[in-house]
Amino acid sequence: MTEKEWIDFLKSYLFEDFPVLKSKNEDCAVIKLAERDYLLLTTDALVEQVHFQWEYTSFYDLGVKLAVSNLSDIAATGGIPNFALLTLGSSKPLETFWLEPFMEGLTSTLERYGTKLIGGDTVKSSVFFVNLVVMGRTKNPLLRKGAQVGDYIFVSRKLGESVAFLREIKKLPLEQIPENLKKAHLRPEPEIELGKELSYQELATSVIDISDGLLLDLWRICKENEVGAEIWKEKIPVGLYATLEEALSGGEDYALLFTVKEENLKKLENLGLRLNRTFFKIGKIIKEKKLYLLEGDLKREIKPLGFNHFEED
Amino acid sequence: MTEKEWIDFLKSYLFEDFPVLKSKNEDCAVIKLAERDYLLLTTDALVEQVHFQWEYTSFYDLGVKLAVSNLSDIAATGGIPNFALLTLGSSKPLETFWLEPFMEGLTSTLERYGTKLIGGDTVKSSVFFVNLVVMGRTKNPLLRKGAQVGDYIFVSRKLGESVAFLREIKKLPLEQIPENLKKAHLRPEPEIELGKELSYQELATSVIDISDGLLLDLWRICKENEVGAEIWKEKIPVGLYATLEEALSGGEDYALLFTVKEENLKKLENLGLRLNRTFFKIGKIIKEKKLYLLEGDLKREIKPLGFNHFEED
Repeated sequence: MTEKEWIDFLKSYLFEDFPVLKSKNEDCAVIKLAERDYLLLTTDALVEQVHFQWEYTSFYDLGVKLAVSNLSDIAATGGIPNFALLTLGSSKPLETFWLEPFMEGLTSTLERYGTKLIGGDTVKSSVFFVNLVVMGRTKNPLLRKGAQVGDYIFVSRKLGESVAFLREIKKLPLEQIPENLKKAHLRPEPEIELGKELSYQELATSVIDISDGLLLDLWRICKENEVGAEIWKEKIPVGLYATLEEALSGGEDYALLFTVKEENLKKLENLGLRLNRTFFKIGKIIKEKKLYLLEGDLKREIKPLGFNHFEED
Repeated sequence: MTEKEWIDFLKSYLFEDFPVLKSKNEDCAVIKLAERDYLLLTTDALVEQVHFQWEYTSFYDLGVKLAVSNLSDIAATGGIPNFALLTLGSSKPLETFWLEPFMEGLTSTLERYGTKLIGGDTVKSSVFFVNLVVMGRTKNPLLRKGAQVGDYIFVSRKLGESVAFLREIKKLPLEQIPENLKKAHLRPEPEIELGKELSYQELATSVIDISDGLLLDLWRICKENEVGAEIWKEKIPVGLYATLEEALSGGEDYALLFTVKEENLKKLENLGLRLNRTFFKIGKIIKEKKLYLLEGDLKREIKPLGFNHFEED
């Protein structure tokens, strides 16, 4: 069974009904508490030698990354995160020298986005893993569902730097790797503020966070809405020291990918000015259920390739 | 660092303030949403060869156990469980032959107590583990804090059968082990109904679920309230085929241990009649901060020994 087949299989067991607004296919489970009051829940785990390597991941960085991978799902749903629970599966003796930097990285990142760690569980395990649950709240949940033909496709920042780090670390010692790549991979930032604004101003018709690569995550939006997309090669914001290929298919960017109606383009521009941010308009939603890469007059179909945790090796 | 020291260390990072009523030392994190409206969150993981052995744990049983270990925390807090999120860390190819019974065991147990699985995450791992988060709600959270000198100590059912199963499985094939031991260890039941009644009727001054052994969990209640306890040897409800030692120190009973004021004993008796249940009055809260085991005129101090996942081997 591939990861995709498993997810389909898992979905057959998921409950979906009022008050659960939407959970299947979304970044968070969305539970309706009251009119314009939704609870968001998400969970993400990191496993040693699968999601990170000890050779270049400090305990502090691990704490940061665990927080960000979960906060990013809250961001993509337009939520304000508030509480978190940690599960620590440790193969190591519990000692301050590593627990302290790990907890500092985790809680300082959570707190920067207003999130409090309120509990958890510790278990012994022959593999080291950490699992976090983050809860959030929103008046207007952003969903993958909603993109329509003609909407413009945006990404919130440059792509490919996180995976470019993984390429470089195979060749170079950590201290020789460019700062922007280290930051992208080891200390990424979740788009909480942007998600909040997109939700509050009702600017986006659909949103996803890019955790498995631009093409794959864009394709998820397309499938959810039974549409396709064209993207414009020269508009893809390729990160410094990253390749176009890495920008298209690399994982763990934690940028937001969102679609916007033509009539809202001006409002989005104003938001960019206010936040001092550039959002990259990279393509358009189309009716035909395919992905196209456009380069000048050249148009070719592309496969939605990206990170697949169960098929990569 | 022992598990206890780690928990103390972890607590130094936990946030505790309004609207988090209580999280440190409690079975669930308790978040106040409004007057008489509290959200409960708990998480528990099971790791292969640590919390269960494949030789005698079917995938269905594993799903049941994961649900129960989390639901039991909601029960001990007097909550009604409603939603759950699953993290599956799999070392195995994702195949229907094991996923189906696992998911059936998990979701059928959750649903029996009104809980819907609404999302989750799947990761590759060289060790097989499952992590569940359960959310619940209550008007009146039951806490560990609250027991007072003179309160009577109750347990909700017979003890020791779960750990007696672990003793027997070393000697006998699964099919020769008595049904009550198999059920206690492989298909335990969470005390959701009892927790709900204790909460609704405000019958208990403090509650904990016995997951690490009667003595250890009783000692947690004592420490939380700066008191001690005496328990009466002949009143300990020792399960069939279990020993007194197993009833005192065995783990994973998932019974509730609770304290009741003298003036409420009659009400509790009525509750037992209504639910057709026997609750076992096993001792009393005392001022001296020690644990005593009483046998006739004999009174001896005992150490709060129990399951400690980090120290047992």
